[in-house]
Formats: sequence, C-alpha cells, structure tokens
Amino acid sequence: MKLLRYGEVGSERPGLLDQDGTIRDLSAHVTDIAGTALHPASLEMLSKLDPKSLPAVSGKPRIGACVAGTGKFICIGLNYSDHAAETGATVPPEPIIFMKASSAIVGPDDDVLIPRGSVKTDWEVELGVVIGKTTKYVSEADALDYVAGYCVAHDVSERAFQAERQGQWTKGKSCDTFGPIGPWLVTKDEIADPQNLKMWLTVNGRTMQNGSTKTMVYGVKYLVSYLSQFMSLQPGDIISTGTPPGVGLGMKPPVFLKPGDVVELGIEGMGQQKQTFKADE
Amino acid sequence: MKLLRYGEVGSERPGLLDQDGTIRDLSAHVTDIAGTALHPASLEMLSKLDPKSLPAVSGKPRIGACVAGTGKFICIGLNYSDHAAETGATVPPEPIIFMKASSAIVGPDDDVLIPRGSVKTDWEVELGVVIGKTTKYVSEADALDYVAGYCVAHDVSERAFQAERQGQWTKGKSCDTFGPIGPWLVTKDEIADPQNLKMWLTVNGRTMQNGSTKTMVYGVKYLVSYLSQFMSLQPGDIISTGTPPGVGLGMKPPVFLKPGDVVELGIEGMGQQKQTFKADE
Repeated sequence: MKLLRYGEVGSERPGLLDQDGTIRDLSAHVTDIAGTALHPASLEMLSKLDPKSLPAVSGKPRIGACVAGTGKFICIGLNYSDHAAETGATVPPEPIIFMKASSAIVGPDDDVLIPRGSVKTDWEVELGVVIGKTTKYVSEADALDYVAGYCVAHDVSERAFQAERQGQWTKGKSCDTFGPIGPWLVTKDEIADPQNLKMWLTVNGRTMQNGSTKTMVYGVKYLVSYLSQFMSLQPGDIISTGTPPGVGLGMKPPVFLKPGDVVELGIEGMGQQKQTFKADE
Repeated sequence: MKLLRYGEVGSERPGLLDQDGTIRDLSAHVTDIAGTALHPASLEMLSKLDPKSLPAVSGKPRIGACVAGTGKFICIGLNYSDHAAETGATVPPEPIIFMKASSAIVGPDDDVLIPRGSVKTDWEVELGVVIGKTTKYVSEADALDYVAGYCVAHDVSERAFQAERQGQWTKGKSCDTFGPIGPWLVTKDEIADPQNLKMWLTVNGRTMQNGSTKTMVYGVKYLVSYLSQFMSLQPGDIISTGTPPGVGLGMKPPVFLKPGDVVELGIEGMGQQKQTFKADE
C-alpha cells in the first residue's frame, strides 16, 4: 500500500493511493497515518480494504508528510562509502547517528525555507524507514518486524550551521522545513529489497545525485537493530538512512541552494518530491 | 505556580502544588501540562484559581515528568566553564547543542535503567527551561516571553556511547529513562533570577555536584534566542542548559553509576529528584 496524508497543514486526512493513482480517503478506518495505525495488525486490516470502496478524493490536494506523530527523526551520517569520500570523511566503523528536530518535518512538495544567515543550504536524498511497532534491543533478524514501511526523505542540511558553528550536526539539520517526508509511506510488502533501490535528485533540472541503496554501508535491518540498542523505537519514528554521492558540499567548488532553486528527488517505487527553496523572511 | 503531573505512567493528570505542599487536581481546567496549557494566557488563568478550591489529591501518587508533549529536548553542551575544564574541554565560542530523544523522558523519581553494555553511565544536574509559546528568530530581550517556566532536568549520559562509539553525542544521551524531568514546572514569575540558583547532586548520599547557575556561560535568555535562530521552538519543548562541575567523568579516576546506586538532585526553588539506577535486563 501507498499510504499518505492529504489536506492543508495541520488538518491532513489519511488516505491511500490506488492503482490508478487516485487518492482514496481512509478517515473511516484510521484517524491518521500515525501511532497505532502503523501497527502490523492495522496495516493488515487496511490491506484488506477494497480501494474502490473508499471515497475518491477529487482535485489536487496538498500532500502532507506521509506520517504524523514522529517522536524521533533519527539520521545516519556518512552511510554511503562514496558520499563519505566526497566529503573528505571515511566510512565510520559503526553508524554515526544524529537527530533532526521533528519540527523540521513538512510535506514532500512544500516550500523549503533557507534560514536567515544561511549561505550553505544543501540537499540529501535519503531512504526513510518508518517504525510501526515499539521495539528495543531487537536482533537484526527480527528488525523488519518493527518496520511499517519506507518513504523518500529529504535531509536538507545547512553545512555552515552543521560544521562551522560548534559541535554536533543537529544545528544544521533541524531548521524548520528541512525535513520533507513522502509523498507516500510505502508498506514494506511492496519493497522486495530495500537495499536495491535507485534514488536520484535534481537541482533546477540538473541531476546531482544518482545512486542506489545498494551502496549503503549499514543496511536497514542493521540500523533498526543498532539503534534499538541505544533507545527504544516507537511507531512513527523515522530513520533517515544517509545519502549517496552528489551533495553540493562535495562539488568542486561547492554549490549551495539559493532562493528560487527547485529541487526534485525520488526513490524507485516511492514517488517523488519537488520543493521550491525560498528565503525565510 | 508549581505545576506537575501525577499518576501512573501514561495516565498522568495535571495538578499543582499548593503552599502547604498538597497536590491539587487541575483536570477541570486543563487536560494536561502540555501544549496550549503552557501558553501565557493559560498560565494566567491558572494563577487566578484559588488552590483551596481545587480537589486535594490524597496519598503519595507517583509524580510524572512535569511537562508532556515535548517535541524537542534540546541540550547545551559544556555550558559551565568549570565543567568544561573538568572534562578537558574548553568553553565553546558559541553554544554546542545536541538532542536528547524525547522518549528518554521519565518522572523525577522513576528508576533509571543502565542500558545493556553500558559501563560509563554518568549524572548531570541541569536547569531545564520549558517553552510556553511558539517562537522563531526571537531577540534576547524578548526571549523570556516565550518561556513558561523552569524545572530540574537530569541529563543522564553514557560516556562511552557518547564519545567512543562514533560521532554525535545523541547516542549516549537518548537511552530510555535518561531524561528525568520535574518534579515541578515552576512558572517563571516564581524565579527572580534564573542565573542565580543553587544546584546540587548526590550519589548514595555523597555530594558530587554543588554549583550555581551563576557560572553558566550562555544564560537562559541567550540560549532561547540563539536556538530560535536555527529552529522554531514549540510549547513543551525543553532546553536543558548544561551541567556544573562534578560529573563522574571528571573524577580522577572516573566514577560511573552501577545498579543499586541512588542519585538525588535538586535546584533551589524547584524541588528535587531521586532515582534508583537499575540494570536494563
């Protein structure tokens, strides 16, 4: 299933995308794509509905972030060997984790605001993993039992805030609108192998990232298990698994985003995002 | 006012502590100490209630974290010059910020679980600042308008996870139960000067930290303003402002917590916490 949230900011309704590309309203079955609605039993119940029996949504509503109630937005740093190389870093011997503020989350096509004082706003297409059921100390073998599905995540990053303004990357990762998520939460049954998905990103139509989750160093199962050794994971938590090569910081000379730039990005089977970057007045 | 939340985990009710030390139930006036209940207008409304008109709570209920719905639990690193010195670091030229998972939050007297594999679990008494109203790009002069009040925060830290397991401190700060908050949210009208509060922490009755917010490098107003340049702050967000000297890591040789240890901590005018440390089986 491709689950989604549609409608204006703060009043999104749950829906699913049917095979014809029509949004079908799920309000009669779940209150939101969040919390207990992400549990395997709930997803099983939703999968048995006939999409044609659900109300079709007319027009072109705004698409919100595909999951709500995210308590933790955990990101993995330098998780593609070739991306590590382009930023002058080496692949770490175990995953680097950092937090992105959940207040950074926006819809996949919402405008992204370049914060005041920013001169190094950069892009990062990433595979997002959405937790469906609470877990802690889970084994790698059992890890996917706790995953609801996957989505496109844009880990927008301000490189000066991240690396030149004193310790800890969170400062350059947490700005409002720096976390577009969606358009869809694609349930894991639709993704045969999360470690073999093409992913891409363009800036003003020019391809900047063109990679695959194949070159991810620490894979999805490993990351869920690894993170759960340090903290419990709850339904709606998102793990953004790192980015392949092609970020602005890695270019010679580096290239950063300016007001008016349009970034599009996508992952195989998961739809695409399109954001216009604007100055945060 | 001293606002609090009492009752079992997950079903806490809002209350306030009256001048005699009796808990008075606030359920008829706010649904929780969270979100809009933290707004200045709501606090003003609550302050006009006669505590004696509110139902007295009998017995000794468990006290929960003093605020709910925390989206961001933001911590400031090395924010006391003498603590920086004891850990071998220098005071940073601007604040170091990192995130603690909001899933780490527990009540002030709940057990703290030493995570599996931990050998360096440490303590840190900190002044917590609770946001009452959404803000972004706020000036230092106006910063306190967005603060609901203050609380004791225990920034429990696993030093090996934090510093020896690859980059970004969040890994050693986010373990479940590593964020005792409370007992009370003390509204800011009760705190004449947040930069002149005694704070202390004992382990098994022995004083380990005995400091004052006087030696905080970046004060509360500055921190609220500074953080709001990077991200918006929402009601219920907590800023934990750093710890004075006396952490286990700074001792020669270092001392860390083991199962059975009892930690007590407090800040002038804000009550105290008491936790028993246990192995996370």
